[in-house]
Amino acid sequence: MQTREFLVSAPGKVILHGEHSVVHGKVALAVSLNLRTYLRLQSTASGEVRINLPNIDTFLAWEITALQPLLAGCKEQGDLKELDADLLKRLREFTGILDESTDTRSMAVLAFLYMYLTVFAEALASITVSVWSELPTGAGLGSSAAYNVCLSAALLSARGTISSPLTPQQESARWCKDEMELINRWAFMGEKIIHGNPSGVDNAVGTWGGFLRYHAGNITPLSWVPILRILLTNTKVPRSTKVLVSGVKDKINKFSSVMKPVLESVSAVSCTCEQTLTEMATHGPSAEHYSILEELIDINQHHLNVMGVGHSSLDTLCRVTLARGLHSKLTGAGGGGCGITLLRPETDASVIQSTFEELKSCGFDCWETSIGAPGVQQHSSAALSQDVLKILNSY
Amino acid sequence: MQTREFLVSAPGKVILHGEHSVVHGKVALAVSLNLRTYLRLQSTASGEVRINLPNIDTFLAWEITALQPLLAGCKEQGDLKELDADLLKRLREFTGILDESTDTRSMAVLAFLYMYLTVFAEALASITVSVWSELPTGAGLGSSAAYNVCLSAALLSARGTISSPLTPQQESARWCKDEMELINRWAFMGEKIIHGNPSGVDNAVGTWGGFLRYHAGNITPLSWVPILRILLTNTKVPRSTKVLVSGVKDKINKFSSVMKPVLESVSAVSCTCEQTLTEMATHGPSAEHYSILEELIDINQHHLNVMGVGHSSLDTLCRVTLARGLHSKLTGAGGGGCGITLLRPETDASVIQSTFEELKSCGFDCWETSIGAPGVQQHSSAALSQDVLKILNSY
Repeated sequence: MQTREFLVSAPGKVILHGEHSVVHGKVALAVSLNLRTYLRLQSTASGEVRINLPNIDTFLAWEITALQPLLAGCKEQGDLKELDADLLKRLREFTGILDESTDTRSMAVLAFLYMYLTVFAEALASITVSVWSELPTGAGLGSSAAYNVCLSAALLSARGTISSPLTPQQESARWCKDEMELINRWAFMGEKIIHGNPSGVDNAVGTWGGFLRYHAGNITPLSWVPILRILLTNTKVPRSTKVLVSGVKDKINKFSSVMKPVLESVSAVSCTCEQTLTEMATHGPSAEHYSILEELIDINQHHLNVMGVGHSSLDTLCRVTLARGLHSKLTGAGGGGCGITLLRPETDASVIQSTFEELKSCGFDCWETSIGAPGVQQHSSAALSQDVLKILNSY
Repeated sequence: MQTREFLVSAPGKVILHGEHSVVHGKVALAVSLNLRTYLRLQSTASGEVRINLPNIDTFLAWEITALQPLLAGCKEQGDLKELDADLLKRLREFTGILDESTDTRSMAVLAFLYMYLTVFAEALASITVSVWSELPTGAGLGSSAAYNVCLSAALLSARGTISSPLTPQQESARWCKDEMELINRWAFMGEKIIHGNPSGVDNAVGTWGGFLRYHAGNITPLSWVPILRILLTNTKVPRSTKVLVSGVKDKINKFSSVMKPVLESVSAVSCTCEQTLTEMATHGPSAEHYSILEELIDINQHHLNVMGVGHSSLDTLCRVTLARGLHSKLTGAGGGGCGITLLRPETDASVIQSTFEELKSCGFDCWETSIGAPGVQQHSSAALSQDVLKILNSY
């Protein structure tokens, strides 16, 4: 251990354009969501490893001496190509988490212990990790990736595998590119534990922040991007991503000549949006840029309806916001779930407030936040709000 | 004159699929709307030509001797390739209708007199023509074409240019193919007078009835088609077709890569619908056929929204009907105007009634009718409803 305390944070993610059509080889734009997950790591003298996850009411601790035997026969720490299935199996046995358990708590515990043991394999350290997230879980907003990215960054920094970039004068700092690559690769291990076969987009967004282009398995961060104000709305209508994805596939098979051009059009929406974002960041944003972003949001929302992944709750979101000149689309799987509403720099606070209130009165959760914000960061305690600090420091 | 009285009717038209994209070279499906225009022609001994158009409060009569000079220097009656611009000019002078007048009444009078004079050129007959229509005018429902088709059929039959197909045993009868071609060509003259540069689709639908495929200027009636029950809704939101068409063009220019696939998809919707209709007529309709028709309606409505020709009134129509499991789309130019709602054979009368009432309470006009019904027909008075007969016989 080199430092007594680490504070890190990572953003969630939303899909700006290209959900569903990305499954069929088209371009998607994923973007960081500035509802963040915060992690505090303290080195302790307790001889224990402790994890506090107040969002999901989980507070657990293990004796280091009890964990040590689990490492017998482990592969080299450096191997980040594949998950160590044997270690994961031993961890499941050790924690009593059955193979069929996929609940948030079990998955969070397994990811934490796996990452802790593999990062600290050479010398298990006595630490307490507390995590608090502004992100709702299971809403398609990358909450597990933000958790894994925070864990990865904090554990690797605490272990000394990567630097601790924050200087005493700074409130927030980021790692260099190579170190970010490493954070991302470890976070991806956590994602594999939690999701089985993740695309890698969520942890990439959590790590790099900003906007990422995702096409045929390749993830490319966009270099220059603006930060955009949005409302994020959770309709709280439950849905199954698997069922929705399979419904889209069926529709493409049923109406091939009708649906394939729609996927083409969505791909073109993503590419036109990418061009517009690049122009905004290069030459400064204009009202015309925002008009284009709004038109693309409307077009894509209609296309998603064509794919059959709309929902009356999302129609309500669109109608309520459009009545105030604001443009919305679903984000992620659809069929309920979350939607985003673009705000212009000049959008008046009273307009936001009344939109907010009407959406709440529809039974939705709603946040004013931004997209395109930085990825994983190290923070001084001065950078964090009192509320977040209070939660993280109470364990 | 061969007969003292002729009763004829012709249907309106709606675009089932392909409005707007047809302007950009894609396939459209036009279909007869069974809100009909009825015409009664009587031969009289008054020495007058009289026209009664109670829908637009127009009742006019001219002495035959006053009309005769207008025919001086007229082309042969048989020439139906072009409008006789000189005759039209003389008619405008005679009636005092200025070149800039394009109101319904002026146009209806000019079309009537032009058709009367050219059909009866060799011997102007003393007749009274009364027309009553179930179609609202100016709503994009082909009311002028239904009027022109009725005029054409009745005048040509009365003149003896074509047969009078009704036998004493029949309530309704149609002309043979060659005679229908002639009716259509004369009706097209009337359309040219009223609209300047019409596509010819409306008069073709009014003549042939059923479903017509329209692609790159070619109009092809579909041989076997079912008759489908619909609700027709007029939102009564005024709009300019010209402005809407130009808006779509601008959007295609602005977002070419996004919009061109959408036009492709609409074309595929038209073709898939055509296939489905043919199957329904060939093998009998099934619930699955109706599901496909409904899905295509939904898809196209979203596409029309992408083109920017939707309207909140049309969203309301879609929402109100979908709440009862019924599927709707705009028809024609959009931006308000009319929408159609497909009814299934098993759709319950109470469902239709409650939909009807809710749509009325939104301020819309609403009709339960059908699409795909026969084109122009000759009728015995027994075939017409008492209400229609009463109106036609009151002049």
